Amino acid sequence: MTAYDYDLFVIGGGSGGVRAARVSAALGKRVAIAEEFRFGGTCVIRGCVPKKLYVYASQFPEHFEDAAGYGWTVPEASFDWRELVANKDKEISRLEQIYQRNVEGAGGEVFHTRATIVDRHTIRLESENRTVTADQILVATGGRPNPHAALPGHEHCIFSNEAFDLPELPKAIVIAGGGYIAVEFANIFHGLGVETTLIYRGKEILNRFDMDLRRTLHETMEKKGIRILCHEMFKAIDKRPDGRLDAHLQGGEVLTVDQVMLALGRIPNTENLGLENAGVELGKTGEIIVDGYSRTNIDNIWAIGDVTNRVQLTPVAIHEAMCFVETAFKGNPTQPDHDCIATAVFSQPEIGTVGLSEDDAAKKFANLEIYRATFRPMRHTLSGRQEKMLMKLVVDADTRKVIGAHILGPDAGEMAQLLGITLKAGVTKDDFDRTMAVHPTAAEELVTMYKPTYLVRNGERVE
Amino acid sequence: MTAYDYDLFVIGGGSGGVRAARVSAALGKRVAIAEEFRFGGTCVIRGCVPKKLYVYASQFPEHFEDAAGYGWTVPEASFDWRELVANKDKEISRLEQIYQRNVEGAGGEVFHTRATIVDRHTIRLESENRTVTADQILVATGGRPNPHAALPGHEHCIFSNEAFDLPELPKAIVIAGGGYIAVEFANIFHGLGVETTLIYRGKEILNRFDMDLRRTLHETMEKKGIRILCHEMFKAIDKRPDGRLDAHLQGGEVLTVDQVMLALGRIPNTENLGLENAGVELGKTGEIIVDGYSRTNIDNIWAIGDVTNRVQLTPVAIHEAMCFVETAFKGNPTQPDHDCIATAVFSQPEIGTVGLSEDDAAKKFANLEIYRATFRPMRHTLSGRQEKMLMKLVVDADTRKVIGAHILGPDAGEMAQLLGITLKAGVTKDDFDRTMAVHPTAAEELVTMYKPTYLVRNGERVE
Repeated sequence: MTAYDYDLFVIGGGSGGVRAARVSAALGKRVAIAEEFRFGGTCVIRGCVPKKLYVYASQFPEHFEDAAGYGWTVPEASFDWRELVANKDKEISRLEQIYQRNVEGAGGEVFHTRATIVDRHTIRLESENRTVTADQILVATGGRPNPHAALPGHEHCIFSNEAFDLPELPKAIVIAGGGYIAVEFANIFHGLGVETTLIYRGKEILNRFDMDLRRTLHETMEKKGIRILCHEMFKAIDKRPDGRLDAHLQGGEVLTVDQVMLALGRIPNTENLGLENAGVELGKTGEIIVDGYSRTNIDNIWAIGDVTNRVQLTPVAIHEAMCFVETAFKGNPTQPDHDCIATAVFSQPEIGTVGLSEDDAAKKFANLEIYRATFRPMRHTLSGRQEKMLMKLVVDADTRKVIGAHILGPDAGEMAQLLGITLKAGVTKDDFDRTMAVHPTAAEELVTMYKPTYLVRNGERVE
Repeated sequence: MTAYDYDLFVIGGGSGGVRAARVSAALGKRVAIAEEFRFGGTCVIRGCVPKKLYVYASQFPEHFEDAAGYGWTVPEASFDWRELVANKDKEISRLEQIYQRNVEGAGGEVFHTRATIVDRHTIRLESENRTVTADQILVATGGRPNPHAALPGHEHCIFSNEAFDLPELPKAIVIAGGGYIAVEFANIFHGLGVETTLIYRGKEILNRFDMDLRRTLHETMEKKGIRILCHEMFKAIDKRPDGRLDAHLQGGEVLTVDQVMLALGRIPNTENLGLENAGVELGKTGEIIVDGYSRTNIDNIWAIGDVTNRVQLTPVAIHEAMCFVETAFKGNPTQPDHDCIATAVFSQPEIGTVGLSEDDAAKKFANLEIYRATFRPMRHTLSGRQEKMLMKLVVDADTRKVIGAHILGPDAGEMAQLLGITLKAGVTKDDFDRTMAVHPTAAEELVTMYKPTYLVRNGERVE
């Protein structure tokens, strides 16, 4: 019998921490978990879940418009931002309870407090003003938006956290950033009727995604009425006498808006955690450095999820949690597998993607076949909406394996999940070709592109 | 050089016939195609395409209702059936033109006439009152709704063909049938505000689908307000003095409605085609009997699509067309592959399915693992709509192969298309398990069901 109070102490009640606590407790381990804010973490409280709910909310105006082509006359609808926020709050409170109950139901102990590390086996429960001991410690404290403190006037800006709970919907907003958070919020605010500008210092939004997706989404967002300025960044933000904000751009333009949102990356939550007391090593951006098994340089201290800055996605944190439990408590050392992760961007239209972009594939494979189709989703034949769907497969011509699949359009996220299975299983283009179409769907395009649109040989496009 | 006018004469301008004509013409063959009604066939003119457009139309009232939970106040919308019909007509006319142009663009000749077979190499163009000759003849005349002439009062009934073009939307309708056409139309009419009853003589709607899907869809449709009577059929249909119809049921009940729709199966279009002049053999239901290569007993006469009553689906007819061209004109005899065809039912909620139902699998495999999840789609957390999504995987425990995948809920058709690839490629449950979730999606449930819900051993369910 160990002399410690707990077999495992988890710091941070997000998706990764809760999963690790729950599963370890279910194994009969003595487990405690501490969360200083709300159980559920970024995903549930101020990330994936509220984000997707707001995406749904922001899509209704297009539903109302699209109905006309189908014989419906819809009088003008009105929107109450506070009601959306309140309904969102109810839902995330419900999920928060479930997260907490799941840990308790498995026999874990829950602390609503900030917890800090005193030494490699001792944790201080700040609001209880006492310490406890644990054999193993798992840090899963996640990350937060980069505050961008170097920007003059950054104190006037909001981040994704605040965007979910604004007291009122702004009339105009400018969002800085080119990542999925910036892009998703630009679409949400625009959909809800906010005059929206997106500025990004890079050459095209959504760095690292397939360039076809990036360009086509950019064009589609602009057609909807979102202003996008690439190669641009803020010089300063000033508060005006009328309470609005002047966003001064490097290029000289001044945008007068109600809110300025910064979505310029996220940083790991590793400050004031006492990590230095145990000698836990951090990386350049403050992330906890771990080995392939999520173990820090201190052999009983582990870290998973965004705080390690590997792949910042909820399912990855959960997967890392499951691998941690296998490794630490089941005698089955298991490394998380970060290869070939499908992801979605809930832009409007949506992106679903898995595997290599064409450009990355061209660097690694001598012979590529690119299959590419753009078409109008059937729904928009009668709605009249001028939005194209894009589907693209990147195939290694030598092995016939599909090594990248990229979709822009309705339900792209759902499709990416299932394409994820096929790419992970190493399915070939011939397997796609052998599959009967399901008609009428959008996805049938993926199994009916029989001839390559073009080839890429040694990095060069050839017809 | 052959002495015939054409290398290939195709009778019937639906999806299968047009594809065969177009691809053969593109190979340089001298091709003609005759269509007596409209190019596009069942799929484009009075099947898949208008059906899915009407599904979209009928979903808007739920969008309007769902918006309330997201902060929207939507005044009551009104619906104009004639506008929907007119807009649908415009779209199918557009597609009809594309179908015809595609044949002509490839160099094929198009006849707007009924064509009949005079002898094995001679075709009569009825409206031109002349004959032409062809080396090969392909019959692709499709099918039509079973008229059910034995039913007293059947002359008062409509079929799917007429349902698309009713002069006005009925206030009340009763639909007979338990197949996907009956089910889809019941949902369409209900969605558009019609008081809808579905009667089916069998024990549960959607025979041959997985029983879980059938039951859950049945329950969901009833909760929406569609009345479903199984083990029931019509005795007679009477016209009332007020012009409405009395549908007398075998059980004694009389339903007074504006329209009675029969969706009791489809029969092949083989009458008055002159098939007997060439000695082409027919089956019991009038279908053309073909071998594995779609060849009839007459070696230069072939048949594809619904007229052969194999699998009545558009993509199957197209696939049979492609195989026919390989076999007849490219010296590459190819049998259509009818195994493991994914399909969708555009009910509300939607069904997407591929592979074996649990019951069928239990007859063929000694050890099954069933993975099953029901949950509320995220969209309905705020909409408040009480609809569950159902996902089910049937796994052969001995090989680990996923042999059936069944989904009920939003986007199930799109998911079925991609699951079709995985099942066709023989992917295992382990491949599913290895795949990272995409969050938040519905499809992530398919890769996160780690433990079987129950097992089936030698046909018996065990826990």
